[in-house]
Parts: sequence; C-alpha cells; structure tokens
Amino acid sequence: MPDRVRVRPACVEDGPKILAMLTDLASFEGAPHHPHLSHEVLQRDVFGLSPKLRIMVAEGKPATLVGIVVCFENYSTWEGRVGIHITDLWVEPEARGQGVGETLIEEVIALHPQERIDAFVLRENKARWFYEHLGFVEQKEWCLYRRAAGDR
Amino acid sequence: MPDRVRVRPACVEDGPKILAMLTDLASFEGAPHHPHLSHEVLQRDVFGLSPKLRIMVAEGKPATLVGIVVCFENYSTWEGRVGIHITDLWVEPEARGQGVGETLIEEVIALHPQERIDAFVLRENKARWFYEHLGFVEQKEWCLYRRAAGDR
Repeated sequence: MPDRVRVRPACVEDGPKILAMLTDLASFEGAPHHPHLSHEVLQRDVFGLSPKLRIMVAEGKPATLVGIVVCFENYSTWEGRVGIHITDLWVEPEARGQGVGETLIEEVIALHPQERIDAFVLRENKARWFYEHLGFVEQKEWCLYRRAAGDR
Repeated sequence: MPDRVRVRPACVEDGPKILAMLTDLASFEGAPHHPHLSHEVLQRDVFGLSPKLRIMVAEGKPATLVGIVVCFENYSTWEGRVGIHITDLWVEPEARGQGVGETLIEEVIALHPQERIDAFVLRENKARWFYEHLGFVEQKEWCLYRRAAGDR
C-alpha cells in the first residue's frame, strides 16, 4: 500500500474534501449534526499564520484523497515537553483494509519520533485494536472529564 | 475562601515553588520519579516567547503559593475552535478543604467561558467528584490511547 498512497501535508485546495471527510467521521461516530468546522475556520486554524491544527492527507492515484489524520500539539508536564494529540483519523470506505490508516499514523510517528502521542478512541470502535497494533497502550487509569463549550 | 486567596498568572519568581508542587503531585499520583519539567524548560515553555503552557497560581496571605492549575490549548474539530485542557491541579495539603481548587478551576472557566474544557482525572481519585460538582461530565465512551515518548 505505501507505494500506492502518498502522505503529505494538507494544502488549501484539499479544504472541501477535508470537511467532507470530517463530516463523514462525525456521522460514523453517531454525532447528531455536522461538525462546526467550516471553510473559514479551516483557512484560519490550519492554513493561517498561527496554525492550531496540522492535517496530513493520504493521496491515492489519480490525485484523490483517500484518508486524513488531524493532530494538534499538547503538553506533558511529566515529560517536560510538547506531545502530539491525534484528534481525527479517517479512511474513505472504499480504501479501507489496505493499510492507509496505518500509513497515516506511521507518518505522524515518523515526524515526531521523540514525542508522546495520544489519541481518544471510542470504546466500541474496532480502531482500538488498530492503535494497539501500532504500539499505543490504553491508559485505563485515566478518565476524561469535559465541561461543554459555552453558547456559540 | 475567595477573599483569602488571590488567583493570578504565574510569574518567573514562582518557578521553584511550581516545580516543587508538580513534584508533589507526581508523587501523589504514584509516579516513580520526578517530572522531567525543569527550571530551564519552565522558562522556555511557560515564560518564553512562544508559551506552550499557561499556569495560574493561588496566592495566600502572606504571599505564599497554596495551589496551582496548569493548562494548555487543545482543539476540537467538532467545535471548530480551540479548547482548554487542564493538565495539572494541585492544592497544598495544609490549604485543602477551603475551596482553593474550586477557585482555581472557576478562574479557568471565567477566562474561557466559551471554550470546551477537558481534564484527565485518575479513576481512583476523589477529584472526580470535585470536577463533577463544577459541571464536568465523564466522557465514558472515549478511551485514551498513548504511545510512549521516545528515548530522551
């Protein structure tokens, strides 16, 4: 598979497809509506002067996107340095089972060989085994607590 | 309590006490050694030109630090905007039971009224009920997976 897809940083032209894939991911996860991420927000937070998110895309042949991984930088006071949080991973249904997701995650690891890498995975999602296969370990002792965003 | 402690952003002079409190926190959580966070790293990642962490301190009277909360910015593609991750909260043993922790978290909420706020809490820690009291909800459907940092 790695010889058939190319992983590269997202560019502005990928915007519509990125939004479509993140919408499909939200739907897959049972979200009640579209993500609030918009074209304008993507331009600002991914492609702007002060990026908040890094997006890598997997490009098949011909030049169509078949997958995406979305990360941001976090921080561990324990490690005393930044780490990486993988917030979204998506592979198009027709491209599954061919190693695209693995290629995307391996690229994140290759770009950040020294950093601790975190990902939240839905408890019922088969992707749990996928992450374990790639060397991730479930942190069973930690619970995630969340205070919802205020009114928009 | 709020009239007896003042919450303010950490300053360079707080560094040694911050490191001491984070060391006590790591010990409380059963960590096998000190955090790797050092004086030099604190200067760079908290007080430098490109901060990675925000630290708020609770100052008692006389001017001694009795608590600390440490945050970084995260990102939600679902919300389409940044959020806050609370990575450390510590109140000195002699100052507990007086609302210092609550005052610190409420300050984070007041500074970020629109943002989603996350915190990891140890499953066996009584702080779980503390966070619930402050409007945080356990996200039971998500598991945290982690790939350890590489060799230092």
